[in-house]
Amino acid sequence: MGNELTTRAADYSQWYNELVLKGGLADHSAVRGCMVIKPYGYALWENMRDVLDKMFKDTGHVNAYFPLFVPKSFLEKEEGHAEGFAKECAVVTHYRLKNDPSQKGKLIVDPEAKLEEELIVRPTSEAIIWNAYKDWIKSYRDLPLLINQWANVVRWEMRTRLFLRTAEFLWQEGHTAHATSEEAIVEAEKMLQVYADFVENYMALPVIKGRKTPTERFAGALETYCIEALMQDGKALQAGTSHFLGQNFAKAFDVKYLTKENKQEFVWATSWGVSTRLIGALVMAHSDDEGLVLPPRIAPLQVVIVPIYKGPEQKALVDEKVNVIIASLKSSGVTVKYDDSENQRPGWKFAEYELKGVPVRIAIGQKDIENGVVEIARRDTKEKKSVPAEGVSDYIINLLEEIQQNLYNRALAHRDNHITEVNSWDEFKSMLTEKGGFISAHWDGTAETEEKIKEETKATIRCIPLNNAAQDGSCVYSGKPSTQRVLFALAY
Amino acid sequence: MGNELTTRAADYSQWYNELVLKGGLADHSAVRGCMVIKPYGYALWENMRDVLDKMFKDTGHVNAYFPLFVPKSFLEKEEGHAEGFAKECAVVTHYRLKNDPSQKGKLIVDPEAKLEEELIVRPTSEAIIWNAYKDWIKSYRDLPLLINQWANVVRWEMRTRLFLRTAEFLWQEGHTAHATSEEAIVEAEKMLQVYADFVENYMALPVIKGRKTPTERFAGALETYCIEALMQDGKALQAGTSHFLGQNFAKAFDVKYLTKENKQEFVWATSWGVSTRLIGALVMAHSDDEGLVLPPRIAPLQVVIVPIYKGPEQKALVDEKVNVIIASLKSSGVTVKYDDSENQRPGWKFAEYELKGVPVRIAIGQKDIENGVVEIARRDTKEKKSVPAEGVSDYIINLLEEIQQNLYNRALAHRDNHITEVNSWDEFKSMLTEKGGFISAHWDGTAETEEKIKEETKATIRCIPLNNAAQDGSCVYSGKPSTQRVLFALAY
Repeated sequence: MGNELTTRAADYSQWYNELVLKGGLADHSAVRGCMVIKPYGYALWENMRDVLDKMFKDTGHVNAYFPLFVPKSFLEKEEGHAEGFAKECAVVTHYRLKNDPSQKGKLIVDPEAKLEEELIVRPTSEAIIWNAYKDWIKSYRDLPLLINQWANVVRWEMRTRLFLRTAEFLWQEGHTAHATSEEAIVEAEKMLQVYADFVENYMALPVIKGRKTPTERFAGALETYCIEALMQDGKALQAGTSHFLGQNFAKAFDVKYLTKENKQEFVWATSWGVSTRLIGALVMAHSDDEGLVLPPRIAPLQVVIVPIYKGPEQKALVDEKVNVIIASLKSSGVTVKYDDSENQRPGWKFAEYELKGVPVRIAIGQKDIENGVVEIARRDTKEKKSVPAEGVSDYIINLLEEIQQNLYNRALAHRDNHITEVNSWDEFKSMLTEKGGFISAHWDGTAETEEKIKEETKATIRCIPLNNAAQDGSCVYSGKPSTQRVLFALAY
Repeated sequence: MGNELTTRAADYSQWYNELVLKGGLADHSAVRGCMVIKPYGYALWENMRDVLDKMFKDTGHVNAYFPLFVPKSFLEKEEGHAEGFAKECAVVTHYRLKNDPSQKGKLIVDPEAKLEEELIVRPTSEAIIWNAYKDWIKSYRDLPLLINQWANVVRWEMRTRLFLRTAEFLWQEGHTAHATSEEAIVEAEKMLQVYADFVENYMALPVIKGRKTPTERFAGALETYCIEALMQDGKALQAGTSHFLGQNFAKAFDVKYLTKENKQEFVWATSWGVSTRLIGALVMAHSDDEGLVLPPRIAPLQVVIVPIYKGPEQKALVDEKVNVIIASLKSSGVTVKYDDSENQRPGWKFAEYELKGVPVRIAIGQKDIENGVVEIARRDTKEKKSVPAEGVSDYIINLLEEIQQNLYNRALAHRDNHITEVNSWDEFKSMLTEKGGFISAHWDGTAETEEKIKEETKATIRCIPLNNAAQDGSCVYSGKPSTQRVLFALAY
C-alpha cells in the first residue's frame, strides 16, 4: 500500500519523518528549512490554536498584530536578546527586483533599492512590540497590558526537522506589561499553568513544570519557566516557555509609567509562547508503528464510518443505519466522516484511517445490521468490539473520553517510569544511554558543570522542577555540595 | 476630550486617518508602511475572518500553510506574474548578523552568510503553492484541490495608508486546481459570490460584481472578477478579487494530471483573496463625524451598558437590573460589556463608545429603575428611546438586526444615487468631479482609451458588471463604437 512505516524500534527518527509525511501533516518545501503544513496538519493546528486562544481570552488577554519586520537597530537595543538571535536571522536588505539586462526573463536585485536600515524577519517580537508599548503605556491606568499575537516567525536553523525545528514556524507569543515585578512573575507562572493544562488535558501529554538554568534561559529573560514532556524514545521535548523579562525591555525601549504616587517607573514584562513544534511532540508522544494516534479532543476527525457491502441494495440498508448514527453524533458535536467512496476497499480504508490516527472507526455491514450491532475499533488499543447499534452514539461519546484518558495515562506511566534518580557519574551515563528519560541528579549549580555534562553526554538540564524538594547532596559530576536535584535529559 | 475628529466635510482623508487611530483600530509602526493592528481592530478582523472561514469550509475548502519565502527563480517562472510583483518585493539576501567589529553593541549583516538564491517575502503565493501542487497532483482523483491560506503578505508600496494600503497586510488566499477550464471558471465565480455575500450580509456594504479589463487584471490571470463598493466620498474601493488563471501556473510549474482517459493534461487554476483592506472599506462606508459605526454582525462589542448613579446604594440597584439584562443578552449570544469603571463620567463613556462604533448603548439610572425602563441609544441614527426593562433583551436583539439592515440600506441608497449614466466627455468630467461615484459610460474596449481617460481624470474602469446589458453606443472618449457601458470611478 505504500503506507508502511519504518518501525519505531528500527529507527525512531526515520519513523517520525515518514509518519509526518505519510500521515499528511506536512511536507518539505522548496525553501530550505521551511515546511508546508498540509490540510490535515493545519486542521490539527487550528483545533489546538482555538483551544489555546480561548484559554488566553478567558485569562484576560486580547489579540493584536505587529509587523513582520524588526529594524536591525531595535534588535541591538537589548544586548542579551541581540546575542541570542543575531546568528539566525533572515535579513531583508532590498525592496525591489528588476529585469536582468543580461538575461531575458530573469530578475535581479535592484541595487538602487537598498534599504537604509536592514530589516530582520522577526525571530520573536519583543523588540518591535516594546517599541509600540512605549506609545501605549503612559500611566498605571494603562497596566496591565495583556496582549497575545498569533504569527509566523523565522529562525535560520542549520538543521531542520518537520515541526520540531523549522526555519519558519507558526506560534503565539504573549507580551504583557505590568506595574510591579510581583505581578509580572504571577503572570509568567499563570501562563505556564495554562500551557500545562492545555498540553495535559487536550494533547494528553503529562508535563513537568520547572525553571530553566541561567544558561538555558530565553535571550533577555531574568527567569524562564518551561514545561517539559517525554517522548517515547526517552528524549525530552520543551513544549512551552514563559519568561519573566524584568525591566530589560522597558529599559531598552524606555517604557515608563506614571505611578499612582505620580512617579515615573519602568514597566515589568513577560513573554510566553508555544508553536507548531507541539505537533511534533504530539506525534512522537502517542503514535505507533501503524501511524498517528491523535487525542480525541483535538483530532481533526474523531470518528470515521466505513460501510461493508455487496451491491446497491446492501449499500442502501447500510446508508440508512449510518445516517441515523451520523445525525446523532453530529448533534453531540462529534466530528464524523462517512467514507463510502468506491475507489478503495474497506481494508485499504482501515489502514488509511489508522495511519491518520482517527480515534474511533465504525464498520457496518449486512451481518451487523441483521444482528443489530456495529463494529467499533479504537485506535489507541486497536481493540475491536461489536456494540448494539441502539444507543451507539452515547457509547462513542464515552469511548472518546476513555481514549483521551487512556492516552494520557499511558504517557504518564511511560514518563513516570523514566524519571530515574542517580547518585554517581557512572550511573548517570549508563542510565542516560541504556534507559533514557529524565535523570534526576544533584548539580552544583554552576554553568561550568552544566556545560561539561553537556559536552560529555549531550544531556542538558531540562529544568529545575517548580516546588522542588530541598535535599542536601553532592553534585553527580563535580562532587561539590548541592541543595537539590535537577532533571537532565537528552532533548529535541 | 482629545477624541474630536476632523469632520468628513472638512477633510475626508484626514477624518479617516484620525478615526483609525483614535478608534483604536491600528497604529503606525516604526517599520515604513507597516501597521500595528491594535486589539480592537484585530477583534474586528477575527470576527470577519471567522465568518469567511466558515463560508470557505461550507463550500468545500480546507486550510493549509505554505512558506513565507518565495525563491526568486520561482517568481520568474510565470512571466506576467513576475512583471506584476518584481517592483514591490522585500528581498532576503542574508541569513545572519554578526557583531560590528568597529562598534561595540552594534550588529552588521554577515557578508559570509549570503544566500545562494535570494528569497522574496511572498507578495502572493501562487508560485510557492503551485510548486507544491506539482507533487500533490498526479491524477484526476486528486482534483479538484480546494485550498485556502490565512497569511501575511508584503508588497513594498511607496505610499501607504492604514488598512487601505500597507506594506504588510493580512489576508486569505484561495488556490484551487481543477481538471477543466469550465470547472475553474465556476469556482472563480462561486468565490466572487461568497465574497459578495460576506460583504453585503456582514459588512452591510452593497457591492457591484464584475470583471476587470485586461489592463486591471491580476498579474498572471486570464480573467479577474471583482466586487466594487462605494465609499461615502464617492470613491470606489475594490473589496475582493477572484481570478481565473487558466493553465498559466500549471505550465510554469509543470503541473499535469492523468485524465480518466489516461492522458496527461495541464491543470486549470483559480486564486482569490480578501485582506485587512476590508477594514478600511468598513470604516469609510459607515462611520460618521463622531466615530466608527460598526455593523452588529461583526462588531467586536454589540452592546455597552453605562450605569448612572450617585452613591453605592443606587449603584447596587442598577447593578441588580443590569445583571439580569446581561445574563439574558449573553444567553442569546449577544456580546455585551458593563462599563461601571469609576475613572470616567457617563458623558465621557458615551462619547468613547460612539467613537468605537458600538451599535447599541444602554444607560440605566435611578429614575429609569423607578419607571421600569432603560434608555437605549442606537449608534447608526443616534436615536435615544426609553424602553420597558421587561423584555429588553428581545428588543435589543431585534434592534441589532434593524441596525444591520439600516446600515445596508443607507449604503445602498448612497451607492444607487451615485451611479450616473453619462454620454459625453464633458459630462463625464463634470460628473466625476462634481458628483463622484460610479460613472456608467460607453467605452471602445481599447487599453489606449482606458489609459488616456486615466491620465486625464485619474478615473479607472472599476469593472464591467456581470450580466451587463448589451447596448450599442459610442465611446465617451474616442467616439468609436461600443457594445456596452462600463463603470468608471476614482478609486482607493
